[in-house]
Amino acid sequence: MLLKGVIMYDVIIIGAGPAGLSAGVYAMRGKLKAICIEKENPGGRIAEAGIVENYLGFEEIRGYELAERFRKHAEKFKLPIIYDEVVKIEKENGYFKVITKKSQYITKKIVIATGTRAKKLNINEDKFIGKGVSYCTMCDAFFYLNKDVIVLGRDTPAIMSAINLKDIAKRVILITDKKELKAAEPIMFDRLKEAKNIEIIYNAEILEIVGDERAEGVKIRVNGEEKIIKADGIFISYGHVPNTDFLKGVVELDKNGFVITDENCKTSVNGIYAVGDVRGGVMQVAKAVGDGCIAMANIIKELQRGM
Amino acid sequence: MLLKGVIMYDVIIIGAGPAGLSAGVYAMRGKLKAICIEKENPGGRIAEAGIVENYLGFEEIRGYELAERFRKHAEKFKLPIIYDEVVKIEKENGYFKVITKKSQYITKKIVIATGTRAKKLNINEDKFIGKGVSYCTMCDAFFYLNKDVIVLGRDTPAIMSAINLKDIAKRVILITDKKELKAAEPIMFDRLKEAKNIEIIYNAEILEIVGDERAEGVKIRVNGEEKIIKADGIFISYGHVPNTDFLKGVVELDKNGFVITDENCKTSVNGIYAVGDVRGGVMQVAKAVGDGCIAMANIIKELQRGM
Repeated sequence: MLLKGVIMYDVIIIGAGPAGLSAGVYAMRGKLKAICIEKENPGGRIAEAGIVENYLGFEEIRGYELAERFRKHAEKFKLPIIYDEVVKIEKENGYFKVITKKSQYITKKIVIATGTRAKKLNINEDKFIGKGVSYCTMCDAFFYLNKDVIVLGRDTPAIMSAINLKDIAKRVILITDKKELKAAEPIMFDRLKEAKNIEIIYNAEILEIVGDERAEGVKIRVNGEEKIIKADGIFISYGHVPNTDFLKGVVELDKNGFVITDENCKTSVNGIYAVGDVRGGVMQVAKAVGDGCIAMANIIKELQRGM
Repeated sequence: MLLKGVIMYDVIIIGAGPAGLSAGVYAMRGKLKAICIEKENPGGRIAEAGIVENYLGFEEIRGYELAERFRKHAEKFKLPIIYDEVVKIEKENGYFKVITKKSQYITKKIVIATGTRAKKLNINEDKFIGKGVSYCTMCDAFFYLNKDVIVLGRDTPAIMSAINLKDIAKRVILITDKKELKAAEPIMFDRLKEAKNIEIIYNAEILEIVGDERAEGVKIRVNGEEKIIKADGIFISYGHVPNTDFLKGVVELDKNGFVITDENCKTSVNGIYAVGDVRGGVMQVAKAVGDGCIAMANIIKELQRGM
């Protein structure tokens, strides 16, 4: 039974990245009683992107500027953003209880837009985070103006990190355990080749971060030979894993932890949708924004039909 | 057998609306050999929209301005746009022949982004088109500055027409055969109610457009009583049908003529994708732009694998 005075939301959006904010704009224009719960900063990981050139309508825009435009757009339509973290979702009779660190909410529908987080390297990096080691190139690149940096990683994430660092750092050393790198968009290779200050070390086993108080370099093994590559900063760029720990046992996840959805962004549970990167597949702003629109259009229809 | 000197495209995009241009930006960034074939104007039907408020990043922008930004974005990445009309697609051995009114092309992949066109009323409107009767509110609204106009239609298309006309025309009479109107986004009802110069006539059978050289009004029957409603201009707003006549027998279409696709925008034929409104479902710029991204990301992957 519902307590008197408890607000029943039409929809709670979890996460205020591009997908969540797009859903939010549609929810508010749809006159729904909606809130968005965000753990960190509205805009999501796009704020960490360097230059965004592939979201139609913006030929070239900095990631954090695009994130800010997204936030303002949602603000214009008065989407309430609550700064808190969802820890659990419970299904009650015909509605959901969303339990956060600070409070709890009840709602008819849920949109999961929690995105992804950086994959850890899982060697000894933990003790150096914030002390010369970072998972977020865009956040921390400017600490290394005209200095030497190392990028540890693979494929698109590592290439993008190196590209984002090349105009700031003096020298960028990309170290990968692979024998060649793959890029989501071939234009990235052009950008990589154009750069005169990027070197790439292939087939390297990454053994440990070296340093005392601060990271000073990386110990690697190449062709059986161990060596230490020195640098002022180290960026770890292995891509991302979905933020779905709180969803285990709630909706179906695939083997990598991404939420399984149909083409309308519906999950395995009626009334719960997932949008954006947390669904896996193509991880692009355009798709995330489209997902938010599709999910909320479906939710509005369901609510109108009393579903 | 291919003739020597014939260009084999990686991908041909048919239609330069938001979905096609988004696919085009991804194709060019993906270094594909691509062209886009457009029958009329780049930007598509979004140019006919009044104010767009729900494409994330643009709080409020005129449809034609957004269309122009989209076109410029594709131009920046040098997407070739060919002004021609596709009349037929033929499957050859491992590639496609795209036959247009003026030429023909061969390609490995096709993206269908042909969108939709206005549904006809099918009474006697044909003789009055351009003579007081229009299917495109945004194109022709300004001819009726401070004049009286009629909107014939149903639901979202009719409501949007009336809203777009209210600030230009003196008086807007929305005539519908339905007993109530449905809106895709409830905020549209607010906009409708706020307007002091919109009247709505429900349950009206629309009999014919009256007039001599030019349309002068509409003859309707309400509660068994026939009457003529006079106006300077008449807008027909019953929504849209997909531009898929050239696809009959090529890919699977649903009963309304929309292209059937999976969640990756793949049609029933390997190598042919469909994006945007032509897929049916949610007809929004955000979804169209997302579709273009999803389809081309998949095509790039296929081509990289030699598929």
